[in-house]
Amino acid sequence: MFNVNDKFALLNDFYEYTMANGFREAGIGDKIVYFDMFFRTVPDGGGFAIACGLNELIDYIQNLRFSDDDIEYLRSKNCFSEDWLEYMRNFRFTGDIWAVPEGTVVFKNEPLVTVRARSEEAQILETFLLLCMNHQTLIATKANRIVRAAEGRPVMEFGARRAQGASAAYLGARAAYIAGVAGTSCTLTDKLYGAPALGTMAHSWVQIFDDEYTAFKTYCELYPNNATLLVDTYNTLKSGVPNAIKVFKEVLWPQGIHKCGVRIDSGDLSYLTKKTREMLDEAGLQECKIVVSNSLDEYLIRDLIRQGGCVDSFGVGERLITAKSDPVLGGVYKLVATEDENGNITPKIKVSENVEKITTPHFKKIYRLYERKTGKAIADLITLHDETVDDTQPLEIFDPNAVWKRKVVEDFTARELRVQVFKDGELVYKVPTVEESRAYCVREVDSLWDEVKRFEHPHGYYVDLSQRLYDIKNTLLMENR
Amino acid sequence: MFNVNDKFALLNDFYEYTMANGFREAGIGDKIVYFDMFFRTVPDGGGFAIACGLNELIDYIQNLRFSDDDIEYLRSKNCFSEDWLEYMRNFRFTGDIWAVPEGTVVFKNEPLVTVRARSEEAQILETFLLLCMNHQTLIATKANRIVRAAEGRPVMEFGARRAQGASAAYLGARAAYIAGVAGTSCTLTDKLYGAPALGTMAHSWVQIFDDEYTAFKTYCELYPNNATLLVDTYNTLKSGVPNAIKVFKEVLWPQGIHKCGVRIDSGDLSYLTKKTREMLDEAGLQECKIVVSNSLDEYLIRDLIRQGGCVDSFGVGERLITAKSDPVLGGVYKLVATEDENGNITPKIKVSENVEKITTPHFKKIYRLYERKTGKAIADLITLHDETVDDTQPLEIFDPNAVWKRKVVEDFTARELRVQVFKDGELVYKVPTVEESRAYCVREVDSLWDEVKRFEHPHGYYVDLSQRLYDIKNTLLMENR
Repeated sequence: MFNVNDKFALLNDFYEYTMANGFREAGIGDKIVYFDMFFRTVPDGGGFAIACGLNELIDYIQNLRFSDDDIEYLRSKNCFSEDWLEYMRNFRFTGDIWAVPEGTVVFKNEPLVTVRARSEEAQILETFLLLCMNHQTLIATKANRIVRAAEGRPVMEFGARRAQGASAAYLGARAAYIAGVAGTSCTLTDKLYGAPALGTMAHSWVQIFDDEYTAFKTYCELYPNNATLLVDTYNTLKSGVPNAIKVFKEVLWPQGIHKCGVRIDSGDLSYLTKKTREMLDEAGLQECKIVVSNSLDEYLIRDLIRQGGCVDSFGVGERLITAKSDPVLGGVYKLVATEDENGNITPKIKVSENVEKITTPHFKKIYRLYERKTGKAIADLITLHDETVDDTQPLEIFDPNAVWKRKVVEDFTARELRVQVFKDGELVYKVPTVEESRAYCVREVDSLWDEVKRFEHPHGYYVDLSQRLYDIKNTLLMENR
Repeated sequence: MFNVNDKFALLNDFYEYTMANGFREAGIGDKIVYFDMFFRTVPDGGGFAIACGLNELIDYIQNLRFSDDDIEYLRSKNCFSEDWLEYMRNFRFTGDIWAVPEGTVVFKNEPLVTVRARSEEAQILETFLLLCMNHQTLIATKANRIVRAAEGRPVMEFGARRAQGASAAYLGARAAYIAGVAGTSCTLTDKLYGAPALGTMAHSWVQIFDDEYTAFKTYCELYPNNATLLVDTYNTLKSGVPNAIKVFKEVLWPQGIHKCGVRIDSGDLSYLTKKTREMLDEAGLQECKIVVSNSLDEYLIRDLIRQGGCVDSFGVGERLITAKSDPVLGGVYKLVATEDENGNITPKIKVSENVEKITTPHFKKIYRLYERKTGKAIADLITLHDETVDDTQPLEIFDPNAVWKRKVVEDFTARELRVQVFKDGELVYKVPTVEESRAYCVREVDSLWDEVKRFEHPHGYYVDLSQRLYDIKNTLLMENR
C-alpha cells in the first residue's frame, strides 16, 4: 500500500515532545486525557463544512514509528529523558478515537475527532491530526461549494500545479472527489483512490507542431475517444474553433465518433462559449462539449451560468486546490477532560479573553436531529458521552448562546454522528471506500435545507448543548472566571 | 537520505502522459524543446519574490522512476502505446536545466527555470516542477515580507497544523527558513534541513495540572533553559504573568538563570505586551522575553511595532505557512523554442487574447545589473542565450512595454542570475546548504533599493529585454496575430 506517512514521524511541533516528555517526567504520562478537534469558523462564511482527512489520520496513527535516527535526533536536543526516549523508540498508539466519517456535514464547535489516550500519546498526535483534518476538510468544503455552483454540470479538479506541495495536490484531489468533483487531473489520485484522472493537451501540444490544424489532427488520430481540443493558443474564434470543427469532421466523423469537446482557457468565457456553441451547432457538432477553465470558483461559475454561458463542464484549478478565497480551516485540538484510575472523568475548560475561544468541556457525543417527514436536518445536539437521545419522545432544545430561545422538537429521528475509529489502539472502524464516502457526502448535503446552503449569509444551523452539558460548562466558567 | 518523491511518480497531470505518448507516436518524442517556468504576478502586490523549490525539484528529477505498478496503471487506461509504456518503464531524465538558486530575488516574467530536453521528457516534468517552484517560492516570498516587517526581531514559523498537507508543512518551513525566519515549530524541518525547531508548551500543558502555578513550576523544573511559559490559558495579566514571575524567581533564579520568556496567544497583543513588560520589569525580570502569536502577518506585526507593543519575537502560523492573504503563485511552464538536429533553435510564442499572457520566446539568459558604487540592483536584462553583457561598456536598456523609455547604464556590474543544474541528465550543480541559501537570500534582499521593498505599491523594478530578443518577440507576434 502507498504510504508516505512513515517518513513523517517527526513532522510534529517540537512542543508536543517537550510536553510529552514533561508529562512522563512529572509522573502523569499515564493519565488518561480527552482531546477534541473542532473548528470555530466555516471558511468563506459558509453554512457548513464537509469533514475529510480521517483516512490519512488513520494511516498516520497506524504507521507512526520513530526510527533510531529519529530517536538520535531527539536525544541530540539534550532535553529529553532516556526513559522517554526509550518509550518513544517503541511508541504505539494505545488509545481510543471517535470521529465523524469522511463526507459528513459538520458545523462549527462540533468535535470532529475526540482522542482518549494516555496524555503523552494524545499530545503527540496533535500536530498531524490537525494538519490532515484541517487541510482536507478545507478542500472538501470548498470543492462542495464549487460543485453546487455548477448545478449538475461536471466539475474537474485541475489544480496540482498550484497546490501547496505534493500532499496538497493528491490528497486535495481526493478530498475534492469525496465532496463531489467528477474527476481530477491528478493521476496519482486516480491510481490510489479511483478518482478518474482526466486530461488531453496543454498549449505546448499545439505550439510544438507547425500549425494548430496539424496539432489537432494528430491528436484526434491518436485519441479519437478522448478528443477535447484546447482552442485558445492563437485565436479562439478565428482559428481554434474552426480548426477543431474541421478536424472533428475529417478524423472523428468517418469513425462514427460524435463525442468530442473543446476547451477554452482564456478570454471572456461567457462571450466565447456562446459564440463557440453557435459555431459548433452550425457545423452540426451539437454533441461537442464545451469545457472552460481559468481562475474559476463558485462565484465565477455562478455568474457564467447566470449570464447564459454555454458551458458543459468546468475545470477548476488553483481556487479549489488552495481554497484560495479563504485558505485556512482553523481547527484546534483542546483538552476537554481527564480521567482518573477509577474511570471518573473531570471536565476541563479553556477560558479565554476572546469569548469565542472558550471551549466546551467533557467527553461528548453529537446527535443530529432530522424532521421525520422531510428527512431534513433540524439541529445538532451535543450531549455528554453517557446521554442518549430518545427520538420517540418530544425533545426540548435551546440555543446555548441565548437560553431563552427554546423549542420542542417532535416527529424527529436522531442519529449519532460519530463512529468509534480506534479502541485500545486497534482500528475498529471499517473504513469506507472513497466511492462510499462520496455517495454519503451527497446524502449529507441533501439532508440540509437550502437556507443553510447559501454561499453568503446562510441560515445559522443550530448546534445546541444538552442541559446537563450546558450546566457543567457554566459551572466551570464560574469557577475559572 | 529522506525522500518521499519516489512515491510521487504519478503525481502528474494526466495530460502530460497523453501529450508525451502523443509526441512519441507522432514521431517527435526526440525533438529537443525548451520550456520556461515563470510567474506573471508577485503575490500580495509585492515588488519581488524569493525563488525556492529547486532542491525538491532536483530530488524529484533524480528519483523519478515508474514502478511496474505505475506502468500497469497507465496500461489500464487503454490509450498509451506499448512502445511508450516500455520507454516509461526505463524513464530517465537526460536533458539540461538552468535555474536561479534558491534564495534569489526574482521578478515577474523572468524564467526561474528553463528545461531543455527531448519533448516527452520535458513535458512529463511540467506538473511537479510547477508544484514545487510555485509552492516554495510563494512561502519564501511571504516569509520574507513577515521577517522584514519584524525589523530585526526574530520570527518563528509555527504553522504546521494549518498547512495544506504534510509537504506544505515541512517544506514550507524550509522555504521560510531560507527566507529569513529564525526557527520553526516543525521538528522534521530541523532534522532534515537544520532549521532550529522551537517550542515549549500548549494550553493543554497548563490545563492538565490542577492549577497554572503548578503547571509553570513543573515546566521550569524540567526545562530551566527553555522556559517560555504560555500565560493566557486563564487570565493573562491577573493569573498568567503573576504566576510566571513567581515561578521564574522560585525555580530559575536560584539556578542563576535569568533567560526566560512568556508567550501570549490571545487578546489584544499591543495592550497585553505593554502591561506584561511593566510587570516583568517591576519584578526585576528585564531579561524575560515576550513572545506573541495569534493570526500574525506582516501587517499586524508592523502595526504592533508602530503602536509600541513590547514584543521580542513573533510566532507566525497560518498566515505564513499558507500565504493566507494571497495563497497562490501562478507560475506557468511554457514552450519557448524547439531545436532541430543541427542545433538550430526556432523560437515559439503563445499569443493570447489576454495581452499579459503572451510569452517571451526563445532560449534566454537573465542578467542583473548593479550600480557599482552602491551595489544596488538597477534592472534585470533578459537576453538571448548567446548574448553576453559587457559591463565595461555603457549599456542602453529600454522598457519593452514602452520602447521610448531608454536609459544608458554606466558604472555597473552585470551578473548572470542562473546556473546550470542538469547537463545531459546529470546534476552538475553543487547544491548549496540551507544555511548558504539563507545567507545568500539576505544579500539578495539587501541589494534592492527600499523603494522596491515596500509592501504596498512598490517601485516597479525593470525587467528589460535585449534588442535582439525584443525584435524576435515582435516579429513572431506580427506573424501570429
